Amino acid sequence: MDKYIEKAGILIEALPYIQRLSGKTVVIKYGGAAMLSEDLSKKIMQDITLLKYVGVNPIVVHGGGNDINKMLSKLDITPKFHNGLRVTDGDTMDVVQMVLTGKINKDIVSQLGIAGARAIGLCGKDAGLIRVEKMEAKDGQDLGYVGHVTGINTKLLSTLTQDEYIPVIAPVGVGPDGESYNINADTVAGEIAAALCAEKLMFLTDIDGIRSDPNDPGTLIYEITIGEIYKYIENGVISGGMLPKVEGCIKAIRSGVKRTHILNGTIPHPILLEIFTDTGIGTMVRE
Amino acid sequence: MDKYIEKAGILIEALPYIQRLSGKTVVIKYGGAAMLSEDLSKKIMQDITLLKYVGVNPIVVHGGGNDINKMLSKLDITPKFHNGLRVTDGDTMDVVQMVLTGKINKDIVSQLGIAGARAIGLCGKDAGLIRVEKMEAKDGQDLGYVGHVTGINTKLLSTLTQDEYIPVIAPVGVGPDGESYNINADTVAGEIAAALCAEKLMFLTDIDGIRSDPNDPGTLIYEITIGEIYKYIENGVISGGMLPKVEGCIKAIRSGVKRTHILNGTIPHPILLEIFTDTGIGTMVRE
Amino acid sequence: MDKYIEKAGILIEALPYIQRLSGKTVVIKYGGAAMLSEDLSKKIMQDITLLKYVGVNPIVVHGGGNDINKMLSKLDITPKFHNGLRVTDGDTMDVVQMVLTGKINKDIVSQLGIAGARAIGLCGKDAGLIRVEKMEAKDGQDLGYVGHVTGINTKLLSTLTQDEYIPVIAPVGVGPDGESYNINADTVAGEIAAALCAEKLMFLTDIDGIRSDPNDPGTLIYEITIGEIYKYIENGVISGGMLPKVEGCIKAIRSGVKRTHILNGTIPHPILLEIFTDTGIGTMVRE
Amino acid sequence: MDKYIEKAGILIEALPYIQRLSGKTVVIKYGGAAMLSEDLSKKIMQDITLLKYVGVNPIVVHGGGNDINKMLSKLDITPKFHNGLRVTDGDTMDVVQMVLTGKINKDIVSQLGIAGARAIGLCGKDAGLIRVEKMEAKDGQDLGYVGHVTGINTKLLSTLTQDEYIPVIAPVGVGPDGESYNINADTVAGEIAAALCAEKLMFLTDIDGIRSDPNDPGTLIYEITIGEIYKYIENGVISGGMLPKVEGCIKAIRSGVKRTHILNGTIPHPILLEIFTDTGIGTMVRE
Amino acid sequence: MDKYIEKAGILIEALPYIQRLSGKTVVIKYGGAAMLSEDLSKKIMQDITLLKYVGVNPIVVHGGGNDINKMLSKLDITPKFHNGLRVTDGDTMDVVQMVLTGKINKDIVSQLGIAGARAIGLCGKDAGLIRVEKMEAKDGQDLGYVGHVTGINTKLLSTLTQDEYIPVIAPVGVGPDGESYNINADTVAGEIAAALCAEKLMFLTDIDGIRSDPNDPGTLIYEITIGEIYKYIENGVISGGMLPKVEGCIKAIRSGVKRTHILNGTIPHPILLEIFTDTGIGTMVRE
Amino acid sequence: MDKYIEKAGILIEALPYIQRLSGKTVVIKYGGAAMLSEDLSKKIMQDITLLKYVGVNPIVVHGGGNDINKMLSKLDITPKFHNGLRVTDGDTMDVVQMVLTGKINKDIVSQLGIAGARAIGLCGKDAGLIRVEKMEAKDGQDLGYVGHVTGINTKLLSTLTQDEYIPVIAPVGVGPDGESYNINADTVAGEIAAALCAEKLMFLTDIDGIRSDPNDPGTLIYEITIGEIYKYIENGVISGGMLPKVEGCIKAIRSGVKRTHILNGTIPHPILLEIFTDTGIGTMVRE
Repeated sequence: MDKYIEKAGILIEALPYIQRLSGKTVVIKYGGAAMLSEDLSKKIMQDITLLKYVGVNPIVVHGGGNDINKMLSKLDITPKFHNGLRVTDGDTMDVVQMVLTGKINKDIVSQLGIAGARAIGLCGKDAGLIRVEKMEAKDGQDLGYVGHVTGINTKLLSTLTQDEYIPVIAPVGVGPDGESYNINADTVAGEIAAALCAEKLMFLTDIDGIRSDPNDPGTLIYEITIGEIYKYIENGVISGGMLPKVEGCIKAIRSGVKRTHILNGTIPHPILLEIFTDTGIGTMVRE
Repeated sequence: MDKYIEKAGILIEALPYIQRLSGKTVVIKYGGAAMLSEDLSKKIMQDITLLKYVGVNPIVVHGGGNDINKMLSKLDITPKFHNGLRVTDGDTMDVVQMVLTGKINKDIVSQLGIAGARAIGLCGKDAGLIRVEKMEAKDGQDLGYVGHVTGINTKLLSTLTQDEYIPVIAPVGVGPDGESYNINADTVAGEIAAALCAEKLMFLTDIDGIRSDPNDPGTLIYEITIGEIYKYIENGVISGGMLPKVEGCIKAIRSGVKRTHILNGTIPHPILLEIFTDTGIGTMVRE
Repeated sequence: MDKYIEKAGILIEALPYIQRLSGKTVVIKYGGAAMLSEDLSKKIMQDITLLKYVGVNPIVVHGGGNDINKMLSKLDITPKFHNGLRVTDGDTMDVVQMVLTGKINKDIVSQLGIAGARAIGLCGKDAGLIRVEKMEAKDGQDLGYVGHVTGINTKLLSTLTQDEYIPVIAPVGVGPDGESYNINADTVAGEIAAALCAEKLMFLTDIDGIRSDPNDPGTLIYEITIGEIYKYIENGVISGGMLPKVEGCIKAIRSGVKRTHILNGTIPHPILLEIFTDTGIGTMVRE
Repeated sequence: MDKYIEKAGILIEALPYIQRLSGKTVVIKYGGAAMLSEDLSKKIMQDITLLKYVGVNPIVVHGGGNDINKMLSKLDITPKFHNGLRVTDGDTMDVVQMVLTGKINKDIVSQLGIAGARAIGLCGKDAGLIRVEKMEAKDGQDLGYVGHVTGINTKLLSTLTQDEYIPVIAPVGVGPDGESYNINADTVAGEIAAALCAEKLMFLTDIDGIRSDPNDPGTLIYEITIGEIYKYIENGVISGGMLPKVEGCIKAIRSGVKRTHILNGTIPHPILLEIFTDTGIGTMVRE
Repeated sequence: MDKYIEKAGILIEALPYIQRLSGKTVVIKYGGAAMLSEDLSKKIMQDITLLKYVGVNPIVVHGGGNDINKMLSKLDITPKFHNGLRVTDGDTMDVVQMVLTGKINKDIVSQLGIAGARAIGLCGKDAGLIRVEKMEAKDGQDLGYVGHVTGINTKLLSTLTQDEYIPVIAPVGVGPDGESYNINADTVAGEIAAALCAEKLMFLTDIDGIRSDPNDPGTLIYEITIGEIYKYIENGVISGGMLPKVEGCIKAIRSGVKRTHILNGTIPHPILLEIFTDTGIGTMVRE
Repeated sequence: MDKYIEKAGILIEALPYIQRLSGKTVVIKYGGAAMLSEDLSKKIMQDITLLKYVGVNPIVVHGGGNDINKMLSKLDITPKFHNGLRVTDGDTMDVVQMVLTGKINKDIVSQLGIAGARAIGLCGKDAGLIRVEKMEAKDGQDLGYVGHVTGINTKLLSTLTQDEYIPVIAPVGVGPDGESYNINADTVAGEIAAALCAEKLMFLTDIDGIRSDPNDPGTLIYEITIGEIYKYIENGVISGGMLPKVEGCIKAIRSGVKRTHILNGTIPHPILLEIFTDTGIGTMVRE
């Protein structure tokens, strides 16, 4: 009995956090190593489902580079990159869309269903959810079907979240003539949080957050301002895959999102840990 | 960190219970020793507030015999009882109403407010919430302003619970000419659960539940049918203050309430323990 | 038959007044001698009920100093006053709350029920209806639980009045930690009219209105501006219990309330007289 | 002042009647001599407007034989009748429609506007409000465009009455091919009351009600059953223009209308007299 | 089969036009020779009905000078005109109202009903739809009941168009005392389009549009600016019955109406031709 | 101009058909050769978009066997069939899901977007849209992930169609444990039409309909009863891919779907031809 009383006490500890987020929108960028572990991903799905049931409106954006590369390799298509961006010809785009919207997206929907939620898998093509235009590389290199976001259909997302549904969004955008475009999932998460003026934006990554010395886990930064981020970008401390994440945070903050976080998705229940503890986890980016 | 992960896991354990009760009504009869302890009552208020935030609609019915007697004594009015029922003359009724609706009721409302909920204190006179008629004692003794319930205004309760409010109800009924009547709080809880076809009705008492040997805590009955209750009443095992509780359960079950419980309100977080564990606590009364 | 035709004509005379107030909110401060007369109070309840049925939204705020003093005396607590304000220690506050919210409030609710209305008795603690802070006396004297209003939960009042209910409000506020505070009922009426931007605010008093010579009933002022009020306060013509009433009027007018009135509640049907005659009764306070 | 208090008392006398009819539909057949008197018609318009403002939903059906005959005469068309029914050729129908829907109907709408109501003038052609078929005379005589009602579009009426509008209906029906038909206004009133399951149906006529001796005003029948009506029809006591009125009552009663009345529209404020007195006026027809 | 495929292709050609107008309001001034031809008017009714079914909200305003003159002549009333305006005494106004609201208006409603629409015939007196004041002639001549528009009750029109109804409006206004006023139908159409901020305003006339040489059909102007109109008015190219039409266009454009058109209503299906072709027909007036 | 008038007349011919289907649901099984032709598929997308804009609620269900086989071949997976059903192991199911939900489904969504509609691509996993159980072959052969439908989430479809969206559904079901199942698209179309009690169900195939002699196009059956279908199945006239189509029709008819059709999707605009002509095209299956 004492054990149960203790557990009840732990539920009660969550109450003030629930009250604060009740009715608010939280955008979660899901990806990285957590997605590859059956156990970790199950726990993340439970976190998201619990949020929905306690009155929060979660929206999930996911990536999937790993599965795309595997499928490209099976189909003997060599992935090409240019300055970290996937050069996406027509055949590659077909594979990207199939894997992202047809495999990973629907699998996440299904996992949320097992956890007890009603999720709906969408991509940018559904009802013009994510409108994009062709991205021009700075050096003039043709990147093919790589897009940058020009608009978000917030009406569809509001309808679904105000109803009983959790939108799960694959980062495929729709161009002016209905063609598909590959977009960075981190960017999509930032744009959606910005467009919905979400309460919170969370990037689940494979490391604990931003470090002042990327190689030293002991240098985790708990809170960082936009100004500091720019300095770290300049001196190379923030680079590579962390760049679109901090850019997503900045975009979101500047559009009125209250809190943005970069955190370790490979810890069990990372979303609950961030939301239901005072200190949170990972790095919080703020104005 | 491990401690937090464990806590998150405990939150997740609650998920299936939350899903089952989401959008449902739970009537809680609050009273007894728990009400007198600042610490226990605070925990119960937290339990009720948490229920509201996870999408359940709690309704609280309370008693208050203790405080009534104290006030009567301060005012030099001698409480009179007849077969366990308070003989309620006009002066006594004034005190009963003042203490129940003006003191205890508003204090509970305030405690729920501290826990973060928006509670509204009501009695049977508000919008004709509990309509009563004068109760006739079997032996013809005039009981004064003691009433039996003839109708519940469910519309008001539905409006409030579907909005953000928790109704807190004092057991004072309104007679055909607008006069006040004293009613048994257990009966009121049963009638309200029945009228709303609630999902659950819980009586918070001072003992663990129904015992087959009232003097032996080891004889707690975990589950009991209406038929068995009638036998226990006949042979005197169920008697006294337990009678209106089991009658409330029976009334509620026969009107379609799914689950009714008699449980120990002096355990910390008794409502969460009953709702968020598989076995529950106390005695479950069923058809 | 002719008598009935004349009566019908009188109903029709009310039509333009009804049209003007249809759908508007009217705040009525109810108190004084009228409250003590069964006959007068019954007529006031009928007035309020009629308003509701012809499409106006009445809100009742009541006082109750008389009953509080009686109960304090029964309990051998000596009322203490400091510059006209009740010094309210914990025990006194308990009695104030019990009498106001548990006796007078529910009795008014019941009388409105007899007149055919559906009233709901509330105090400032219900859903945080009236938030207050401790009032500091100018001379530093500790007044105990005497509060000044810092906020009104208009959402609850709008919900109830747009539905079929008449809110009846006892002047007990809720402090930052959930504790009860005694507040002047006139002030509460003014604050609520201001917060709701009511169409009309009426103070039912025991005299005909403001007099230029307080001792001469023949000097009743039919209409007075805020500027004139300040002069009368300065020269002592307006003082004592009239002060919070005129302050309530001023607060309300400055927040956009169209018309505020101080009138004699001991005339039969004072509310209808004020509303359904061209000249109205009592003193109208205006910008 | 005493005069005003007495007037207020008269308003209060109306309260129980208002409560009883609040939210209910009342169909009023308006016609006869009252319509020709500026003073009487103004009072009736005030009665109807007052009903709307106190929460009742009035619907007005009107006749207009007099004005039709005047216009026919101006146009040198000789009115033809067959067994009391107007034989209506195409030219006559044009005049009937113009006078009823273009003159009388819009004038009533305008008078209600002056009284402060928002009325909408309709005929059976608007949105198929009254669908009719050609009436066959029993003796085979061709009656031209005389119709009997086959359907009422209750949706339009419900929409308008639940909003702020009072429908005013001219007795012109629409045939299967869109052509106009002349219909008896009393019949239309009965059919509309029946289709809407109104609370009350009132025929404003030129005499006090049904008399057991048509020539003796002292033989007014205050209440009559359907059975008794049939006897009076058989023995000729009820005949002529009274026939469609009692038939309208019977049709309405059999469809669930609670109360139907035949009363004198030439008394000032006949509608209020019927509604706001205990005995009512005229003859009440009941099952 | 090929014929049907071609027809389907023609339906599809309409799709982009439907998409552009979906949910928008289109005001159509209906009158002139088209109204006198059974075949042409039937086609116009079909056009309007089709608009409603493809999601556009049409509102019809009609004239009727021809029928008024006929009826005046039958009644031996000599029509009087002063500078092109009908001098309207009381008797004339009666006829104007009867013919417009009782004959033409209800006939159009009926024709729309045959085409499958649910139309409601209204004039300015219904719910105060068109409020007017007496028009003063520049030369001081008393014009009788000739009004100029001072207000439109847009609420009624919005309610009806957002529901399943098509409002059909006769140009009779209501004065300050409820009296009827004759108003120019073109002006009414312009005012209603302006008040509703319609998407489109169309005048169906008897000629193809505005001509730079009124006598030469070959000089039709396809598009004209407000500035050019003023020049044409000055030099007399635009005059007579064309004046209120262009004034209606100007009023509407200045209030935010997107597109206004003057076109030939005697071509079959003129509304569809204007809406569902790229070039449209007639003259488009623009800022 | 004459050409345009003729076109307008053709639009008007569609009016009665639009009126009949307005607000109704039409389920369209899209597949076969039409899907492979850019021109034909574009015309079908236009047909569906036009339906939506004229107030009909289309729902699209699609197949995609061809593309699945191509992708399987690229991945060196040999398709296996057993009695016409695809034996679906885990790897195959992955490909089926990716191609159907990630390629074909989103491409249709995109084509509808180009035609001007807002489509949402779904599969049975989204919010549990199509719940299935493993299908047992009659001869005991394990078919792998081949499912039969046990339930349809109609709530999601109603929400989307009553809003501005067109659901496009891939025939992938969700099993009891969240796993994906391959289902026959024809069956899915029949089940969805049945569950929604659609007005119409249409199968777009590669031939003109059911023929009494499968090899002779001249023997097309225009209308066939369920009884006749059973006879044709027995004698082998109906067999192969036509079987699930007629079974879908029968299932739908028995659940209250009014009209079911098997028609040639390779004719331009087949949906409009079926809906907007009196005779329709193809074979109509009826009770």
